[in-house]
Amino acid sequence: MTASPLAVAAGPGDVLQLFRTQPTLTRADVMAQTGLSRSTVNQRLDALLSAALVVPSGEGAPTGGRPASRFAFNSDRGVLLVADIGATGMRIALCNLRGEVRHERDQDIDVADGPSPVLTAVDVAFRALLASAGCDPADVHGIGIDVPGPVDFDSGQVVSPPIMSGWDRYDIPAWFTGRYDCPVLVDKDVNAMAVGEHRSVHPHVRQLLMIKAGTGIGAGMIIDGGVYRGADGAAGDIGHIQLSVSDLSGTDAPVCRCGNAGCVEAYAGGWALVRDLNSAGRSVRTVSDAVALIRTGDVTAVRLARRAGRILGHAIADSVSLLNPSVVVVGGQLAGIEEQLFAGIREMVYRRSLPLATRKLTIVATTLGPRSGLVGMALLLADSIFAAPRVETLIARQ
Amino acid sequence: MTASPLAVAAGPGDVLQLFRTQPTLTRADVMAQTGLSRSTVNQRLDALLSAALVVPSGEGAPTGGRPASRFAFNSDRGVLLVADIGATGMRIALCNLRGEVRHERDQDIDVADGPSPVLTAVDVAFRALLASAGCDPADVHGIGIDVPGPVDFDSGQVVSPPIMSGWDRYDIPAWFTGRYDCPVLVDKDVNAMAVGEHRSVHPHVRQLLMIKAGTGIGAGMIIDGGVYRGADGAAGDIGHIQLSVSDLSGTDAPVCRCGNAGCVEAYAGGWALVRDLNSAGRSVRTVSDAVALIRTGDVTAVRLARRAGRILGHAIADSVSLLNPSVVVVGGQLAGIEEQLFAGIREMVYRRSLPLATRKLTIVATTLGPRSGLVGMALLLADSIFAAPRVETLIARQ
Repeated sequence: MTASPLAVAAGPGDVLQLFRTQPTLTRADVMAQTGLSRSTVNQRLDALLSAALVVPSGEGAPTGGRPASRFAFNSDRGVLLVADIGATGMRIALCNLRGEVRHERDQDIDVADGPSPVLTAVDVAFRALLASAGCDPADVHGIGIDVPGPVDFDSGQVVSPPIMSGWDRYDIPAWFTGRYDCPVLVDKDVNAMAVGEHRSVHPHVRQLLMIKAGTGIGAGMIIDGGVYRGADGAAGDIGHIQLSVSDLSGTDAPVCRCGNAGCVEAYAGGWALVRDLNSAGRSVRTVSDAVALIRTGDVTAVRLARRAGRILGHAIADSVSLLNPSVVVVGGQLAGIEEQLFAGIREMVYRRSLPLATRKLTIVATTLGPRSGLVGMALLLADSIFAAPRVETLIARQ
Repeated sequence: MTASPLAVAAGPGDVLQLFRTQPTLTRADVMAQTGLSRSTVNQRLDALLSAALVVPSGEGAPTGGRPASRFAFNSDRGVLLVADIGATGMRIALCNLRGEVRHERDQDIDVADGPSPVLTAVDVAFRALLASAGCDPADVHGIGIDVPGPVDFDSGQVVSPPIMSGWDRYDIPAWFTGRYDCPVLVDKDVNAMAVGEHRSVHPHVRQLLMIKAGTGIGAGMIIDGGVYRGADGAAGDIGHIQLSVSDLSGTDAPVCRCGNAGCVEAYAGGWALVRDLNSAGRSVRTVSDAVALIRTGDVTAVRLARRAGRILGHAIADSVSLLNPSVVVVGGQLAGIEEQLFAGIREMVYRRSLPLATRKLTIVATTLGPRSGLVGMALLLADSIFAAPRVETLIARQ
């Protein structure tokens, strides 16, 4: 009962959802799919047509006074701007209203420079994309930003981010107010990655666990087909699951950048791998250096990578035991050492988790690679912009 | 988009949902809440009335040829039978069609006797409840059984249950076919407990984690208001999250009854507590004995209970990091040592999990106590029986 929403009359927003998920529809299609009367369908469609959210389409387009018979979502009514912000770089895109990327670029940044310089760089890049697409800020229907840290999804504030110094409680949507007159959606990067991989690669999967193994380690979850963020937007904090219980083992667990000790990330995160490689006499500065060294086959580096895979595998096994997903997707920079990492991950998951949870489980590397966050954020933004109540607002504005 | 289902015309099953969640409704209420036309509402209501799923109600009941104006769900059209099967005992109830318990009893059993003796005992108890309520098997609209082991929810089969010897792949619904002509729903006990606590005590919470700390340890999850079972029904296997990583610590982790070593349950389950108390020279046979001894204040027993609380707290902290629930409810026999257990649980959760995930988190003991599974299973069964497609079947049978 709680799980099945009550049937309610379909408003213009609900009717628009039909057009967003199907190429074209007739009035009769809309009647059949909503159960609305002909006069209500005409009313809904008139509202969507006069707001240019829906347009006549295809061979039924009006000629010589004959009314149009087929209609489609107007994905070129405006554009969406999206930025996928990482620790040391960002990807920016201009998308149509379906969330499909039309123009894209990337550039280096340092997220630790703080919000003002980073968001200024984002805005400069946005303006350049708009100019090259022949658009102006008034065409922007929504802005989507994803960041490498926890986000209070309702307010769009970054909360206690370990690697984003100066961003704590920063109100990203407020920064864009005045610059653009549109909604601003902020999410955690790994949630966007989960959506990107889910919609583009595994659309029929209901439960998907996305692991980001980069400098840090995090998880995004698709549950019953939608992003799961938890009660406060903090879900998926897999990097700080504790591995060694010092009460029991007495060993000295490595200190994590979150302030605790023995976290998964403190053993298997990219930064920990860099630390351990240096301790072992290999001189590496960045996670990319570490990945490159491991790919050369250096024996010590490979041994450390396999160890990281097993530790990450412990955390993934815990998550599989708890969540029982159908698919686990591993992305992030460390997915570049797939061979070394995946052996350890699979070993641990199949050893530790209940047979019922693993018999149909698939563990795969990212398909979209470094673009999964950008692609997913654009799709999340499109969904958010065209959520039913916002559609009513768009119509009322006309 | 994936998260927002398309609007569709409300069938008789959807209309019945309105009656199940509200005391009484008029035809106008149904029109307003569904957007259906008057003639369609009349048609839906006639079908529900002639199937006696809905009845005239209250002051608007028909008198002197005036048609009824108010209608209500007919919760006494038949009864539901529910059994909450534990390792050493079971609770059985006869409920109305809202899933409200009307007659209840409990008795000792040994689940390890295997399915045939246990289900025979369930059936004998069901027949006694039916007789005392003046009902017969034809009045039974549904049977709900919950068991202390993993269940493949779609088929109702128990799968690889560690403590239910002889039950692996046993088809519980098939056992009842021939004895009763009604749907049989089988679920894992902790899922039923989660539903019981959620609906009865925390109805407005969207994300709830139910921990069963008994002989074994398990978790049930309410996600976005509904039970989350995972892709194969294996979600919530918190008892076999691994605590000590022998690769790292070199300590000898205790062997678990699942066949692995170092599981949460192998340290903090009731059976492990019994084992450790005996090793420490205290003679206890059952988990109840252990709980009773801890409540006497025996220093060694209290020390072991606090240790169990901290270990359980590690696993709960991991789950909180991953799921970010609003409420954690702890039930099962070990909730009887709340004072000793909760200190350790709270210590670990607040130390380990992200501040964003714990700032609004509540950790509470079960309110329904040993009845949470029974109460929840009855509610789950009522929802399942009156899911829209089944309502169509009930109507077609008339």
